[in-house]
Amino acid sequence: MNAAQTVPETAAAECCTPLTRDVLSAEDAQRFAQLLKAVAEPTRLRLVSIIAAQENQEACVCDLTEPVGLGQPTVSHHLKILVDAGILHRDKRGVWAYYSIVPGALERAAAVLSPR
Amino acid sequence: MNAAQTVPETAAAECCTPLTRDVLSAEDAQRFAQLLKAVAEPTRLRLVSIIAAQENQEACVCDLTEPVGLGQPTVSHHLKILVDAGILHRDKRGVWAYYSIVPGALERAAAVLSPR
Repeated sequence: MNAAQTVPETAAAECCTPLTRDVLSAEDAQRFAQLLKAVAEPTRLRLVSIIAAQENQEACVCDLTEPVGLGQPTVSHHLKILVDAGILHRDKRGVWAYYSIVPGALERAAAVLSPR
Repeated sequence: MNAAQTVPETAAAECCTPLTRDVLSAEDAQRFAQLLKAVAEPTRLRLVSIIAAQENQEACVCDLTEPVGLGQPTVSHHLKILVDAGILHRDKRGVWAYYSIVPGALERAAAVLSPR
């Protein structure tokens, strides 16, 4: 759970009380919309899904271009948006960056939409 | 649960296998992105939240303009996007339209982000 704890400044880590429990403040609405926008894009959804499906739940950008049928600059751009939103964790090792899902990030976003 | 059953053609009703269970198909990714885009907007998140907070979980557009500080045409535009995505149900009674959350819609979206 360390990855989640080390990115407290991101939308995914900070956001929010459940949508249907209390009226969302304007500030929380802004923050949660920003988080949802990061994932509300077909290629980014597929990237998250492909990373989650890896045996060690981690993927190099070199593993991701072929399955989504896009070039590396475009894939890297999408990955950066997901990292900035706190959904993905980026780990540079040698020449490649490896991406994994921040533990708890998707669960927290889901819990704002609908409390368990 | 009737409202949910009568809108099978919407993104909220149709979508999808959980993101982290299997690699999302391009078609499911498109559909789920469309659903997330409908809610990934601060005013629309607040509208859903305000409707959920009503005593009978239903609100007239006339109750929604003041809390979000926007005019009726803008609020109606946001409400239409939420209705089209299958998040809200619209019921015209007399001169006003009343909006309620489609039962299960937010729960289904949350379950795609993170299975329970």
